[in-house]
Amino acid sequence: MALADTNSLFELLRNGDRGALARAITLIESTQLKDRSAAADLISLAMPLSGKGIRIGITGIPGVGKSTLINSLGAQAIAAGHRVAVLATDPSSTRSGGSILGDKTRMEDLSRSEQAFIRPTPSSGHLGGMARMARETIVLCEAAGYDMILLETVGVGQSELEVDQMTDLNLLLMIPGAGDELQGIKRGIMESADVIVLTKTSDSKKEQLNAAQSALANAIPFLPMRESGRQPKVLLTDALAGNGITELMDHVLELHSTDRNNGHLTKRRQDQNVHWMQHAFREGLLEFVQQDPEFAKAEMDLRARVRDGAIGPFQAANVLLEKIRKGDVPLP
Amino acid sequence: MALADTNSLFELLRNGDRGALARAITLIESTQLKDRSAAADLISLAMPLSGKGIRIGITGIPGVGKSTLINSLGAQAIAAGHRVAVLATDPSSTRSGGSILGDKTRMEDLSRSEQAFIRPTPSSGHLGGMARMARETIVLCEAAGYDMILLETVGVGQSELEVDQMTDLNLLLMIPGAGDELQGIKRGIMESADVIVLTKTSDSKKEQLNAAQSALANAIPFLPMRESGRQPKVLLTDALAGNGITELMDHVLELHSTDRNNGHLTKRRQDQNVHWMQHAFREGLLEFVQQDPEFAKAEMDLRARVRDGAIGPFQAANVLLEKIRKGDVPLP
Repeated sequence: MALADTNSLFELLRNGDRGALARAITLIESTQLKDRSAAADLISLAMPLSGKGIRIGITGIPGVGKSTLINSLGAQAIAAGHRVAVLATDPSSTRSGGSILGDKTRMEDLSRSEQAFIRPTPSSGHLGGMARMARETIVLCEAAGYDMILLETVGVGQSELEVDQMTDLNLLLMIPGAGDELQGIKRGIMESADVIVLTKTSDSKKEQLNAAQSALANAIPFLPMRESGRQPKVLLTDALAGNGITELMDHVLELHSTDRNNGHLTKRRQDQNVHWMQHAFREGLLEFVQQDPEFAKAEMDLRARVRDGAIGPFQAANVLLEKIRKGDVPLP
Repeated sequence: MALADTNSLFELLRNGDRGALARAITLIESTQLKDRSAAADLISLAMPLSGKGIRIGITGIPGVGKSTLINSLGAQAIAAGHRVAVLATDPSSTRSGGSILGDKTRMEDLSRSEQAFIRPTPSSGHLGGMARMARETIVLCEAAGYDMILLETVGVGQSELEVDQMTDLNLLLMIPGAGDELQGIKRGIMESADVIVLTKTSDSKKEQLNAAQSALANAIPFLPMRESGRQPKVLLTDALAGNGITELMDHVLELHSTDRNNGHLTKRRQDQNVHWMQHAFREGLLEFVQQDPEFAKAEMDLRARVRDGAIGPFQAANVLLEKIRKGDVPLP
């Protein structure tokens, strides 16, 4: 894409053209080499306009009611004058076409609003790549005037730790009930929660709600303190019935405004940016070295020998490092 | 050190000479370039003789009673015919001479036994370096015939995640009592525990013990499942009074033998070895690149600009990667 085209795409985007925003995100997500420089240009243009949004991570196991809550929360924010962008990184939302449709149905109010933008983030490619896309998409959405970014992610694997490096605040959604279904909550998720939201509370008996709240009250003191110095509060919601949504939104806005006023938000975002620079450099450096076929083969062989116990892991790493030091890996 | 000297040091070591083992570990820990090849030779010699030990991580906040428990557990193991090596990575054990002395006093039985070897691991240097030393020290100890390795670590920071990459099983020590002191338990520690050990139980009232057990019973279901498919059991001990030590040892040996028989132990150790190879390679590669003063300066400048928001993190990473691609970083 020529620079003039990139500039005009960006002009449309900053004036709130949703089609232009969608095309810009597609460029960011493109794996084709020819799109790289246009994508980088777009980000450079968008950067100065970004940063004003409230970035909220929303996580929880499939079925916990993320889409329904996002729909209610988003509609509430729009009614209060916000413009809302929803980025769905839930792989189950993107794995099949049917599922995306499912999400659109569950986000009915938002998908009908002119003030909302919904975008599933591709789950293909490696996690680092997805993280980069999600971060750059946030920048584009903010440049397009969206001042509330809801980043949906499914609570499995490491993704929530990456999300914690992009958001200002995180909500962890849980269904009240027996402890068993909470087993799905993986390493790090509870630790990165600023608010724990019990969902679908109308479906639960009073005793179930009490048991869930008391189990959480017992578990929360075991969590490490968030950098903000807080531990998560537990809130009850029923998005379909519209219960608890106002209270949740008020609480989130209050936390955000506190963090903004006491400087925590600025520091958090600065740290996040340095994290992403280092992360991207490390990934890129590794990728660069591994693209040498001879090196890749040597690494694979050594990995197998390490697994067999034929060579120690540090010795194996040294064999690889020697290749770099000697210049066996050709550097163009 | 000439190869002949290395060989004779190793012969002494494998015949159980504790002085030789201590000297070998000192070589491993040496930061001097001239010791590197002797250290590598020693590890190569020791590798085939290693792997037969039971590797147990013992973690908990300072004051929880790690040394006292290690003393009792170790004495029990020696009585059952084991040879016990204690590697103390607790920085508070090594920070001052007085503290090491303190540890020796608290490990009185062990420090008097011919079948025990106690070694504080230096906490100086970066974590990766410490991890490497600890891993290589385990290899040397096993080659010297120690078949039970107790790896003590203080439960702060990331160290316990690194320890989880070296051990077969981990014990997390906690003092029963009000929830407050448990705040010290950091990210990842509870998740890497195979057994939670309540210590100093004679000092606690019955109600305190009950409260601690019930708080843990509530918190444990929120932990992710260990790869072994287990969740930690809570055991009560009083090392000074000798209570609960036999039960703890029996439980640990049973877990270890289960893991050995069902193949989990082999897989865990193979995965650990691949982890350390990759970890050491990444660290080494980064170190290699950063040792170029011009690159280091560019990185520092970019970090500051990223923090200020003057440049995006991914763009900054690309600037650095371009330096590598162009060969601006001289490779000898």
